[in-house]
Amino acid sequence: MGDGNVFKIPWRRTADVCLEDSVTRFALAVDVGGTKIEAALVSEQGAVIEGTRSRRATGPTATPDDMRAAIAAVVDHALSSDAARGGTLLGAGVGSAGPIDKTTGTIHPVNMVQLRGFPLEESVRNAASASWGSDVHTVFAHDGGCLALAESWLGATRDARVSFSMVVSTGIGGGFVHDGRYAPGASGNGGHIGQMRGGEGLRLEPTASGPASAAWARTQGWTGETGEDLARDAAAGDPIARAAIERSARAVGAALADAVTLVDVDMVAIGGGFSHVSEDYVDLVHAALVENAVLDYAARVQVVRAGLGGDGPLIGAAALILRQG
Amino acid sequence: MGDGNVFKIPWRRTADVCLEDSVTRFALAVDVGGTKIEAALVSEQGAVIEGTRSRRATGPTATPDDMRAAIAAVVDHALSSDAARGGTLLGAGVGSAGPIDKTTGTIHPVNMVQLRGFPLEESVRNAASASWGSDVHTVFAHDGGCLALAESWLGATRDARVSFSMVVSTGIGGGFVHDGRYAPGASGNGGHIGQMRGGEGLRLEPTASGPASAAWARTQGWTGETGEDLARDAAAGDPIARAAIERSARAVGAALADAVTLVDVDMVAIGGGFSHVSEDYVDLVHAALVENAVLDYAARVQVVRAGLGGDGPLIGAAALILRQG
Repeated sequence: MGDGNVFKIPWRRTADVCLEDSVTRFALAVDVGGTKIEAALVSEQGAVIEGTRSRRATGPTATPDDMRAAIAAVVDHALSSDAARGGTLLGAGVGSAGPIDKTTGTIHPVNMVQLRGFPLEESVRNAASASWGSDVHTVFAHDGGCLALAESWLGATRDARVSFSMVVSTGIGGGFVHDGRYAPGASGNGGHIGQMRGGEGLRLEPTASGPASAAWARTQGWTGETGEDLARDAAAGDPIARAAIERSARAVGAALADAVTLVDVDMVAIGGGFSHVSEDYVDLVHAALVENAVLDYAARVQVVRAGLGGDGPLIGAAALILRQG
Repeated sequence: MGDGNVFKIPWRRTADVCLEDSVTRFALAVDVGGTKIEAALVSEQGAVIEGTRSRRATGPTATPDDMRAAIAAVVDHALSSDAARGGTLLGAGVGSAGPIDKTTGTIHPVNMVQLRGFPLEESVRNAASASWGSDVHTVFAHDGGCLALAESWLGATRDARVSFSMVVSTGIGGGFVHDGRYAPGASGNGGHIGQMRGGEGLRLEPTASGPASAAWARTQGWTGETGEDLARDAAAGDPIARAAIERSARAVGAALADAVTLVDVDMVAIGGGFSHVSEDYVDLVHAALVENAVLDYAARVQVVRAGLGGDGPLIGAAALILRQG
């Protein structure tokens, strides 16, 4: 899903932080996206621990061996960091772009052909256990579920009974949390809203993502390239750029009306780079949701901006260990 | 939702049944639909206990006093039955047509104006406590959730990890069960698939229910009245009647493709009177679902006939006590 908008949880830099806080207990968090793999240690309080985070690029041509090497590099960077020394590793949480199969611990990426069926859970467990020197308990989930867990723990949906947290970016996806617990679904893919057709009869992701919105604007005569270009031109009064933004928000709101009606969600959090394309993007989505909702309980849902930004996926992967035990 | 197709769970009639089985522990089950209220005792094994079941008609003009009287009648019939005497009442489970608000224990029926906001949970608790002579623990849910719980316990979805059980009848609705537990949603309305627009951009219930299908056929020149007429005429080779059935199944399958993708369900059970309109109705729905599913995990879902028929809602209401404790 990806998100350039990083909101850092404050991390105190005083020398005695390790003595004062229970920093010595942490989880290893691993996040696998379409173009990179990232890892860090996350404290019991949900902070990404400084000096433990690293990433490696992957891509459409990545092989299983490339992935194993990338996993070993980022996992080892975290677990052999100064911050890890003397601490207690509670386990490893792994989030991945979907589709996944949590029953076998494998990923099935649409855009990385050679990695379909790659045993991500086992590979992280092996790398972490080798680096740490003992068996590391490992839990695996869809990145949308990790994001939703993180928002429910420390972000925008803390007060919800049932929340849906989603990203609108290059892709569109999300996850459900019921009463503080992630709802993975049968194979770990609960929350794949981007592949719904939704109320307007069109698949959501190919209609409303950043690249899809820019592509649509070009069919209308706009000459920019990216979501950032759309944001700039809409702010400057370009009617086509503005129409592309409204079109995306309408499609997201219509799909959310179906999702909120079906699952009975009381709070939706929206993040991801394209959700910042205009200041009122989340309000436009909310209005479209209400317009498309037939039943009162669905129309009453709260729609808010996500709170965690770029740290969300790692915090959520850690939450698989720290919050779901 | 309603269902004329009754499949009775066998109930042994030998004189010593009460001694042999733990029949002496049971739940009171209450089911409120658009046109009737029904109650019975259900044994720990999930059987509707003979001689305890009764129903009262309600309807669009029912007042709160009418409802209280009807509740008192059916509850008292069950609790003062011979079968109840000397037994242990574990609690009362109440299922109702939606929308409901489980946070306040109230119902908000679209078609019974005077009953919007009626305190169903409290009314059942009061009636049961008065009849039984002590406080009766009462749990309240949407009837779609009850149905799904019943199917997951004793019906067609026993082997599912995450199931969706639904009724196609005068109305269309259902419920989700994750790992044996009903997912009520924030206000108790999870499973309201009839008010989704689904993949074809049309609200499901007004498109695909029995009455909607008959109405559509009449616009095409067909001259029958009911879903039963459609079944008979389609079986006799009437192409319009057959087209109406296929149209309903297509819409249900398209909406299910969205629901299964979003929640990651591995088994769907379909019941309700109109699901019997043709022998291949469930297969038609399954084919439409697969055609509309983009992701492999969604296309792999099993689609089967519901197993419990007309006893499902009462068994499911009882399961709120017997299985969700």
